Order: sequence, then structure tokens, then C-alpha cells
Amino acid sequence: MASDKIIKSRFFFEDEVEEKLAEVPTEEPDSWQADEKLAKVGKPYSRIDGYDKVSGTARYAFDMHLPNMAQAKTLRCPLAHARIKGIDTRKAEKLSGVLAVLTHRNTPEIKWYGTSFLFDTHLRYEGDEVACVIAETESIAEQAIKLINVDYEELDHVVDAKEAMQDSAPKLYDSGNIRNGEPGTYSRGEVEKGFAQADTVIEDTYRTQIAIHNPTEVHCSVVNWDGDRLTVWDSTQGIFRVRDGVANSLNIPLNSVRVIKKYMGGGFGSKLEAGKYTVMAALAAKQIGRPVRITLDRKEMNLAVGNRPDSVQTLKGGVKKDGTLTALFHHSYGAIGAHPSNAQCSWPLKSMYKCDNVKVEEYSVYINAGRARPFRAPGHVQGFFALESLLDDLAEKINMDPLEFRLKNYADKDQVYNIPYTSKVLREAYQKGADAIGWQNRSEKPGSGRGPVKRGIGMSSQIWWGGGGPPAYATLKLNRDGTLRVIAGTQDIGTGTYTFMAQVAAEALELPMEKVEVILGDTAVAPYCGASGGSTTAPSVSPAVRNAAENMKAKLISGAAAHLEVPESQLTYQKGMVNHKTNTDKSIAIDQLVREMGEQVMVSIGKRGANPEGYMINTFGAQFADVQVDTETGKIRVNKIVAAHDIGRVLNVKTLENQMHGGVIQGLSFALMEERVIDRYTGKVVTFNMHDYKMPTIMDMPDIEMFIVSGGDPKISSTGVKGVGEPAMIPTPAAIANAVYNAIGVRIKQLPMTPDKVLNALYR
Amino acid sequence: MASDKIIKSRFFFEDEVEEKLAEVPTEEPDSWQADEKLAKVGKPYSRIDGYDKVSGTARYAFDMHLPNMAQAKTLRCPLAHARIKGIDTRKAEKLSGVLAVLTHRNTPEIKWYGTSFLFDTHLRYEGDEVACVIAETESIAEQAIKLINVDYEELDHVVDAKEAMQDSAPKLYDSGNIRNGEPGTYSRGEVEKGFAQADTVIEDTYRTQIAIHNPTEVHCSVVNWDGDRLTVWDSTQGIFRVRDGVANSLNIPLNSVRVIKKYMGGGFGSKLEAGKYTVMAALAAKQIGRPVRITLDRKEMNLAVGNRPDSVQTLKGGVKKDGTLTALFHHSYGAIGAHPSNAQCSWPLKSMYKCDNVKVEEYSVYINAGRARPFRAPGHVQGFFALESLLDDLAEKINMDPLEFRLKNYADKDQVYNIPYTSKVLREAYQKGADAIGWQNRSEKPGSGRGPVKRGIGMSSQIWWGGGGPPAYATLKLNRDGTLRVIAGTQDIGTGTYTFMAQVAAEALELPMEKVEVILGDTAVAPYCGASGGSTTAPSVSPAVRNAAENMKAKLISGAAAHLEVPESQLTYQKGMVNHKTNTDKSIAIDQLVREMGEQVMVSIGKRGANPEGYMINTFGAQFADVQVDTETGKIRVNKIVAAHDIGRVLNVKTLENQMHGGVIQGLSFALMEERVIDRYTGKVVTFNMHDYKMPTIMDMPDIEMFIVSGGDPKISSTGVKGVGEPAMIPTPAAIANAVYNAIGVRIKQLPMTPDKVLNALYR
Repeated sequence: MASDKIIKSRFFFEDEVEEKLAEVPTEEPDSWQADEKLAKVGKPYSRIDGYDKVSGTARYAFDMHLPNMAQAKTLRCPLAHARIKGIDTRKAEKLSGVLAVLTHRNTPEIKWYGTSFLFDTHLRYEGDEVACVIAETESIAEQAIKLINVDYEELDHVVDAKEAMQDSAPKLYDSGNIRNGEPGTYSRGEVEKGFAQADTVIEDTYRTQIAIHNPTEVHCSVVNWDGDRLTVWDSTQGIFRVRDGVANSLNIPLNSVRVIKKYMGGGFGSKLEAGKYTVMAALAAKQIGRPVRITLDRKEMNLAVGNRPDSVQTLKGGVKKDGTLTALFHHSYGAIGAHPSNAQCSWPLKSMYKCDNVKVEEYSVYINAGRARPFRAPGHVQGFFALESLLDDLAEKINMDPLEFRLKNYADKDQVYNIPYTSKVLREAYQKGADAIGWQNRSEKPGSGRGPVKRGIGMSSQIWWGGGGPPAYATLKLNRDGTLRVIAGTQDIGTGTYTFMAQVAAEALELPMEKVEVILGDTAVAPYCGASGGSTTAPSVSPAVRNAAENMKAKLISGAAAHLEVPESQLTYQKGMVNHKTNTDKSIAIDQLVREMGEQVMVSIGKRGANPEGYMINTFGAQFADVQVDTETGKIRVNKIVAAHDIGRVLNVKTLENQMHGGVIQGLSFALMEERVIDRYTGKVVTFNMHDYKMPTIMDMPDIEMFIVSGGDPKISSTGVKGVGEPAMIPTPAAIANAVYNAIGVRIKQLPMTPDKVLNALYR
Repeated sequence: MASDKIIKSRFFFEDEVEEKLAEVPTEEPDSWQADEKLAKVGKPYSRIDGYDKVSGTARYAFDMHLPNMAQAKTLRCPLAHARIKGIDTRKAEKLSGVLAVLTHRNTPEIKWYGTSFLFDTHLRYEGDEVACVIAETESIAEQAIKLINVDYEELDHVVDAKEAMQDSAPKLYDSGNIRNGEPGTYSRGEVEKGFAQADTVIEDTYRTQIAIHNPTEVHCSVVNWDGDRLTVWDSTQGIFRVRDGVANSLNIPLNSVRVIKKYMGGGFGSKLEAGKYTVMAALAAKQIGRPVRITLDRKEMNLAVGNRPDSVQTLKGGVKKDGTLTALFHHSYGAIGAHPSNAQCSWPLKSMYKCDNVKVEEYSVYINAGRARPFRAPGHVQGFFALESLLDDLAEKINMDPLEFRLKNYADKDQVYNIPYTSKVLREAYQKGADAIGWQNRSEKPGSGRGPVKRGIGMSSQIWWGGGGPPAYATLKLNRDGTLRVIAGTQDIGTGTYTFMAQVAAEALELPMEKVEVILGDTAVAPYCGASGGSTTAPSVSPAVRNAAENMKAKLISGAAAHLEVPESQLTYQKGMVNHKTNTDKSIAIDQLVREMGEQVMVSIGKRGANPEGYMINTFGAQFADVQVDTETGKIRVNKIVAAHDIGRVLNVKTLENQMHGGVIQGLSFALMEERVIDRYTGKVVTFNMHDYKMPTIMDMPDIEMFIVSGGDPKISSTGVKGVGEPAMIPTPAAIANAVYNAIGVRIKQLPMTPDKVLNALYR
């Protein structure tokens, strides 16, 4: 079955369209070989959009200003759980400059989150949408919001997953607070038998916090109707998903919605779908007959546009004296907020190491808070923190070096589906990383350093899905001066997609980079592409670009053959020329060919082929942390992170390093600082700004050293790219946690490892 | 030779790129047959962009407002001929809000018009560009322009073609005022022998005036740089020509320039190329690091963006008593303004009627005025006025009915190249038109009506090039809900291109019109298409759309065959379904197919095939006018115009009728009202606004009755469309002139036929 095949080979977001790739046979070029030296691909080209960004001329959705544009703001529920008994918008409507006030009373009942609505009278969390005011200016809209009189019936709330699982807890849904009424489960082998075979068994509980995506660019849409046709400028990771979502909500054809996004200031999973704000703006724009811009402020982003669910993970591991893992058990629960989402985090335990007996039970729990959403490596960041902590403790118990212990349990094939990997270059990552961090100098006795500031070294492995995900197509067109344009329906979410696409096209057609321009982020002008998430953009799109370029080469040769009146077999393509093998008079530059033949022959379309069947595609890696812990203040400083990864082929080592740095920093931040805190009694978020929700600054940055141990993976596509978005972040918190243990000899089992937790662990 | 072939089969603007169409063999569907009944094509669908336009939500280049956008205005030479001795911009630069002042001193020397520059110190006409001011607002820019101090050396001027041809005239160029130093010539047969064979010879001189395009929408560009990449929102008939022109002027790659135009408020030939204003705005935007908007006001449009050259045509015709034309001679000169253009107008005489002996001599003459440009049917409007006036006089001389005279000299093949027409349905047009106007009731004795208001009926024939011109391609993509998008690099200049493209796609794929959206006017997203001029858009683009749709059908069938695992030969396409011929279980709707197969199989590209070799493609027609002339006031009122044309297949009879009305009105206006007047002594234009430059209003409108006598022309393309933009206007002035003669019995040999000319002719 197709969907089964897809699930085997890559990660899909729960609500993502699982599109079967075309089974029509397609010709694909041979993949670049693993060690093939390429002229453009892999090289550290600066972003072709770099100037726009550093100069400030880059225009984001936020910067779209249309003539006669109105501004919208949202009234959100100030309570954790309530029902609207009455709403009076008359004062707001009378305020000068107010154009419209949307509520559940004057808008269509548009389904949202399965069982709720765009405007629901049952408000399930602080931040739930109550009304939307459209006015001449943002400040008038904000004033008007304060004039709306809502009569709330306050309901009991629950904002903690454990409490929510109790029978006595206030219920968010009639069917109870456990999503689907039961845990997600998984097992292989016989876990009890495995534990019986073990010489040592450890069971422990690890906790991770809720984190907020908090991208730099706020969520924002600008919408404009031309008759029945809607254009949306949106800050989104998935232009086609926004198109589909908005069209479905408004019950209009897909053709009638055009979504445009040129640049984005981060999403991290919080911008994968159409937001309520976009649909509210579209409804309002239709009503008032003017373009509407709607933006969320930082507080709204901290309440209502997603988060990483927390986790309470109880892990149990059994090991023989020789280091063989005999059994792993995982029980967890996590809060997914007020609407369907997913708190599962067991995949690392199921897949990272060789282990025949595994059992998993994991609960996703509703609470009165904003809904969880995918957040860079959903499940894996929290899962690895628990798994790798347990592994280090098991290794210590049997007096084995933690790295040796991991090598002892190195998985030679996929553990869940029992199929081979397309490639796995993890041993080399362990070696490079260990050498670079100075693993041989690591203190074998945790906490044995002298003085109050103690230093430690730790590590963590990493696994993630790899290879192409959503459908991907690219169109190339050659202009009459020999310059090339790449057009695709994907989007650059800030990771360098514009640049690497140009590199792949320039590589395949042997053209200078300056000759290649790239158009992305417009649903009207390119075939469907998937959302950018799950580390799938580069592995999905790069083969489409290469294949389009190879198609163009073939077209150039056949065009030149017709034009020069020689057989195609006598012609070869080199560096913008079609050359005759023997007769130099019969050569032609492609710009001349374009001018003389018309540009038609110079348009080509390429698509990504399907992932290979019968294989698992994964990225692998290891990160090593060198930390120091001040045992008097409890403050942890990360001195260095070494990140060594197998991510298939590198497309651009500079943008890759950027992305790696970003991932490591986001991991460090999750390990040490970030936490959304809700007051249990009021049910209200107390960390709703960037002062209280802590993030690192330049002063907190470690040295970061990167090693890419892989070449291209020719099994998976014509470019051999696996992906790197999530891998960069996955192992960082676990590596830091293990380094902290190595430094102080006491394990911190709860993130973030703030000074209070360190001091409590040391002295309580 | 390819270029020869192209010139034979269609009209090209002088400076247009003559692109050879691809010789690579392409598969094309069979053409729709001449009388084939089609479901969508031809039907009077309202414009799909109609709502945008009537509601005012349509955004033109003029309406583009970018954040931080500056405004530019142009200082133009107030003299007819001058040289800049000095220029002092300091006061202007000091004015608060002024951002930059561009002149010849601080900008690169960019070639323009062959021998001149973007800013030339030799100013050859009133309106020539001297400086460009960029400021925070338009009114500041206008103020600043007044503060620029220019020291002009005034030079002698000449603003009349006849004077300019004298040796004593001030010279615009060292080589003299006659372009190329000699007339354009043509001859076939032996004209003197032809005149010797004639029983009657008439020689007369006809004059037409200079007219200004004056489209509703002013010329305007908004430009924005992102680093090295320039986006231009422009009011243009040729997005790719603007791209090429701007890129060449700035010496940057074509890839670096993106030109966008969604809607346009008329061009008529005045917007076929990149304007100086666009390049000035681009230079300024680069300098100040902000977007710049530049607009021309109505005076600038009347001075500096083109006109129809005037003509003084001396025609001589010889005819036998039986009505056989034995010889035609044409001598003409016309003013092309200060820069290279073309005043030739002999093509009607060379091609309309069968005549073996023809000789032509025509001069294009430089004067100190704005440059002539193509204007709806360049040469033909003025040429037919002279030719058809002469023909009526010849017919009267031999006592033959004018219509009978024309039928007598009906050309059965192309007269210039001596090759057959693909089709010619002119006899039917004569018949329909004559019946509708009541030709049988026409007074045979001109001026014989009783009373001061005299009525008359007259007619004129029409010929114009037809068939595809510039390259044309279309891309179709099918969305997963079965809606279809058409993307092409052409542009809608107001003629209904969005709508007819949707109709052709809907026809070929048997889909409802609501399912089809069209994207045009963006150089970044589609392959090269030619400019919209010369009546070439519909005949060029409609076959590309149809061919793309047929390609998509083939893809749908092969995709469905693979998906359903049945041979392609068992499947047929009908109305959005791929059906198995016998097994109804093996049918699939295309939206489902798209979802299941991925959208790749659902993208197709189509191109127009080449025009057939060895044939001439022409449109033909005849217009009949019913007028009344008040012999006391000299005022002419046109009661009715009957327009009967052979334009190949009709794509949309409603937009066709719109275009026909527009052409007739523009012809009527040229016949009776419009005239650019220059004061000979000052060399300055006195008719620079819409008060002094007369145009008709609703009160001047005649009844207009339209007959399309042709079906599709299957010889020329898969859609059989010939084109209608210019044909609509060509015969109108001549028909009115002949009707006026029929009414009053005195011939007016000079346009416009204003009351003073009528009274002078009658009573002087």
C-alpha cells in the first residue's frame, strides 16, 4: 500500500495530505555518486537573497501594504476555560474608524480542529478567538477590542497533563481528556523476557517542558479580494496548505485562492497550516470590500499558535554486563493543549539502537491551553533527552564508556520495520565528534573535578527520517540571453532554498551562478509542492530541479540537432554550449539557440522520483557537548558543541552550517532556558513575552564545530540529499544533559536545567 | 529564409524582435473545422476580469503602492529645438523632500533611439527629457522641477514634414531630415504602361493629421530593486519587450528584470516598448535605495509617448471603362517626429485590389516633435482613406457603382507576393454590409438630397495581416480539486485575453468556465511571449492554449492508464473524466486522478505552431457608413456604421463586439475630430490636453452593427483565429469620407473632417 510505503520512508505531519507519488514511469538521471566532485553543489555560496535581507529591502508578508488596506486585531479569551453567554459589540462598532466586528454571531460556522469552529462559544484556553475587529488603523482596532463586552461563564480548568488524566478533572471534551481515549502503543519482541535476561535494569522518569516556537517574524496575513478571487500574502511554511485550508474554510475552489510568500522570518512548525487569523481577515475583507492586514503580537504568539508538548517519560532499560541492550520500555504522557495534536516521543527509543524487546505506551492529553503543533523534530528532542540520559546511566552501571556502549548497540538495520537503511554513516560521526571534543580526556568519574566550577563532556546520538517527502516539481526556463529561471511551488522558510536550487540548476547545466534566478512561494505559478517541514524541502526539491535541468539538456540537444541538421548522437552539452563532437562549425551557444529556435524548447519540468522501496531512509548524527557548571550559582555554560552528522549530500556548506548553528542554539535554549509557564490556579500563561520567556543571547553561545561525514546517498534520489533541518537540534539537549552529569555527578532529570534545578539536585 | 517567411505572413513592428519559430517538429492537434460548433469558444461570456474593473478593485501599475515608495516627475524641454548649455539643480536638490535629481551629468550615457541618449543635451522636441526629480511626494517633485535652472541654447526648428524636406530647413540630423536619405519604394508591373492602357486616370492629394494614442490609463511605472534584481510594474503592451529594453539599457541580465502587468487601460501602440521614464525610475530607485513610482500626466502623454504620423498622399489611379484597374501610383510623405519611426502607408494600395501595375514612393521625415509610434493599424488607416476616396472617384468617373467597382477588382490572391490566401471571405462581407446599410437606397447622385441636412452612404474595404505573430506558449496546471490554471507570458491589454484563454482551455478540456483561472503578465513565471500589437495576441496565444490542453488530455489518459492498469487505447477523455470504453469501474475523475497521481502529470505546455508556408494570411472586411451633414453648420453626424469582417474564428463574440465598437469609435474620431496641432512659429503643441485635443463622447456615437462572415480558418492554426484589433478601425474613416461625399457631392480630402473643412469645401 502506498501510504504504508510512505510512512516507512519518511516523517509525515499528522494532518498532512499523504499524496501518493505518480506511478507513471518517469525517466530520471543517474544519481550523483557518493563522492562525486561537483563544481557548484556543496560550495559555500552566500545566499542569493542575502542582500535583500541584510539591506532591509526584503519584503515579508508583514511589509505588504495595499492601497486602502484595513487593519485587523483579534479579541482573545482572557480565561482558561469559559463559555460565551453574551457578547455586545455595539460600542466597538460605534468607535470612529471601526469598519467591522466579526464574532460567532455574524460569521458562518466554519469547522476548525475537527470539532470546534472558527469562532466557538466554548472557549477552551486563554487566547481562544472571540472576535475580530477591522479598523482603519491597528491602534483603533486595539481600542475597539477593549470596548467589546463579553459575558463569560467561567468554567473549571485544568492546565497540567497529569491532573487532566484524573477522573475528577474538568473535561475539555465529553469523551474525556485523553486523546482517542487510550495511549498509543507499540511493541516488538517480549519486553518482560528481555528484562529477565538483563544483568542490570534501571527505571527512571524524565520531564521536558512546553516550549513556544517564537519565530522572529510574527504570524501575519494580508488578504485581498478581486471579485471572487482571493490573494493571501502569508508568513507560511506551506503555501499550498494555506491555499487548501483557506479554500476549504471559505468553501471556494482552490483556483480562487492565490497564496504568496517570498521571505519568512522563521516558523519552526508553527506556520504549517492556514491560521484562523487568515480566514478571519478574508471574511472581513470580503465584507468591507477592502484589503485587510492582520498581525499577531508577541503575546498572541505565546498563547495561540502552537508549542512543543511537554513530556513525563518513564523509561526502563535492561542491559547485560557485556553492554547488550536486552529490553526498553517507554511510558509517557504529554499535554497537547485544547485541540487534537500529538505528544508522542518514543521514536528515538524504538529506532536508535539495536534492541529486540521494546514496549511503548504514550498518552496525548488535552489541557486548557493553546494547541501543541509540530516543533522542529517533534517528539525526538524530548525523546532523546530521556533515552540518552538512561543510556549513560546504564553504561555507568556496567562500567562501560558511554560511546563504546552506543557502538555496542549500533543498529545495522531499521529496528521498527526490519528493513535495511539506504545508508548509515554514524560510526564516522561518533569518531569525528569524539576526536574533536577530546573524548579521551573526559573524566570517567562524574563530578570529580576540582573547584566550584566543574567541567564535563557528554554526548547523544541522533536519528531522523530522511529523503524526499511531499511531491516536488520544478520548471526551468531559459531566457534569450542564456540566463535561467527556476520556478517551483515550494517556499524558502529561511533555510537557503533559493540558493541551493540555483546551485543544483547551475551544476547540472554547468552555468555560472549569476545566470540563475529562482521564483518560489506563489501557488498560482507553479505545480503543487508540499509544505516545508520535517527536513523534507531540500531532499524533495533538489532532485526535481536536477531532473528538470537534465530534461532541459536533452531538449537543448534535440533542438540543436534540428537546428544544425545533425544527428543528436553527434552532439554533447558543455557549459552553455551544444557542441558537435567532431565538427566545430556545428556548435551553438544556448542563448543563440534560444533566440533562433524560440523559447519553447527551452522550458522543462522536472519532478522528484519516488523514494526507493524496501529501504528506510534516515539521517544520523552525534553531538558532543563540553560544559561547565558553577556549583555555587547553579549556572550552566556550554563551552562547545561538536555536531557530526550523516545527512547525505551537502548542497551548500554555508547555509548548512547556518542551519546547524540554528539547531544547536535552539537545542541549547531548550536544554537550559525556554519554558512556557502556566499559573495552575488562574490557568493563565505567565511567560507571554520575550522578557519572561527566556531565550539565549549572543553571550550564551558556545563554540560550534560541524562535521558532515556523509557524501551523497545515490540510493534515494538524483541528488542524494537526506535533509538537515531537524537533525541539527535533536541531540543537543541530551548531549548537554549528559555533559552536566559528567561535570557534577548528579543527574538533572527535568528540562530546562535552570540554576534552581541544578542547585536543588546538588544540595537537596 | 525564416525572416522572409515571417514578413510574408504577418505584420511586424519595425523594432520588434523577429524570432524564428522553433523548427523542432511538434505535434499539433487538428484544427477546429471552419463551421465546427463549439461549446465555449465563440460564446458571449462576460470578461472574467469584469468584476475587478467595474468594482474598482482592479489594480493597475498606477495603483501599486510600495512601502517607502518615492515619486518621480520629469522635467521636459519647453522648446522645439535646443541644446543644453548649462543646468543648475542645486535649488531643486535643497528643497525639503527632494531625494535625487537625475540629469545627463550624473547618469550613465544610455543609448536611446539609436543615436540619442536617455538624457541628451541635444533636445529635439518640446517634451524631450531634461531631468528627473525624485521626491517624497509628486507635488514636491513638481515644485522641484520648477527650481531647476536650465540654460538652453535655442535652435531653429521645423515642425512640418514638407518644410523639413526643403534643403533650407533646420536639420535634426547631419544626414538630413529624410529618414535613410531616400524614400521607401515598391513596384510591380509597369506603371506607366498601366496608365497608358487606362480610359480614365485620376490624380489627387489626400492628407491625414497626426493623432495621439491618448489611452485612458497614463503611462506609469513602479520600480523596486532587491539587491541586483529589479521588479517593474508597468503599463505595457509587451512585458518581455520592457524586460529586454530595461535590461539592455541598464546592462544587466534579462533574469534580473521582472516585469509585471495585470491590467491595462489602453495602449493602442504607445506602450509597446520600455519608456525612458521606466529606466529613469530604475536608476533613481537604485540611487536612493527605495521603490520609485513615476507617472506621466496628460500633457506629457500628448507630447512625448508617440503618435500616428501624418500623411500627404498623392495617388494616381488608372481604370478602363469596364472597371479594370490598370495602374496605381502612390507618393507620400509623413512626419515621424524627432527620432526614427515610419510614416509608410501604401500597403492598402499595394494589396487590397487586383492591380498588375503599381508603383510606390514614400518618405518618412524628421521634424521637431515627439516621435511617431505604431498606432492601431499603422499606415492602413491613413492609406485606406486616400485609396478608397480615389476609388470612389474613379467609379463615379466611369459610372459604376462603387461596390460593383470593388468586386470587379477583387483580388483572388495576394498581390505583393503572388501567393494564395489561406482564406478570404470578403464577398460575403460586402453583401452583408450592403444589405444592412441599405445600399440599394443609396442616392446615386452625390449631394442631391433636399434640405440643409444631407444624408449619404459610403463604404470602404479593409485588409490586414492575420494569423500568429510572436512566439506564444501556455502552461496549464490542474489543481487537486479539478480546477485548472492557465499561465502564459502574454498580457491582456484590455481586449479580453484572460477570458478567451479560459474559453479555449475550457473548450478543449470540456470543463465549466468557472473551473479555469488565467495568470498573465509576469515575465518571471512564463516562457517568452511577444508583445500585444498588430492584432496578433489571440491568433498567437489561442493555439498555444489549445495545444497545451490537448497535451494535458494526452497526459491525463496516459496517467489514468498507468493508474487503472489498462491500456491507453481503452480510455477516452470526456468532461473532466477519463472513461474506460467498456468497463465503467475503470473510469476516474481528473480531480481524483490528480490527487492520486501527484500533480506532475497534470502540467502541460503548449505552443503555437508555425504559420503555413506558401500562403498569405489576411483579415478582410468592409465597413459601410450612413452619415448626415448639416450644410449650414458643416457638422457631420455618423448615424450608423455597419462592420462586416472576415477575421477567422470568433473566440468570444461579446469581447469581439467590444473591440469592434472601440475600433469604429476610434476611426470615427480620427475621421472627424482628433488632431495634434503644433504652432509653426513656436514649435509647441497647442492641443496638449483633453479639452483641446478633441475626442468623441457618448453623444457622438453611431449605431454600430457587426457581422462576422468567417468561421475558423483551419489552415492557419489549431484554433483558426485571424485577429481583429486593427481591422475594426481601418476602414471607418474612409467609409465616412465616402458617405460624406455621397451626401454633399464635394470631396473632403483632408482629415479630420471638421465643420470648417466641410464649409470651406462647400462654399469656397
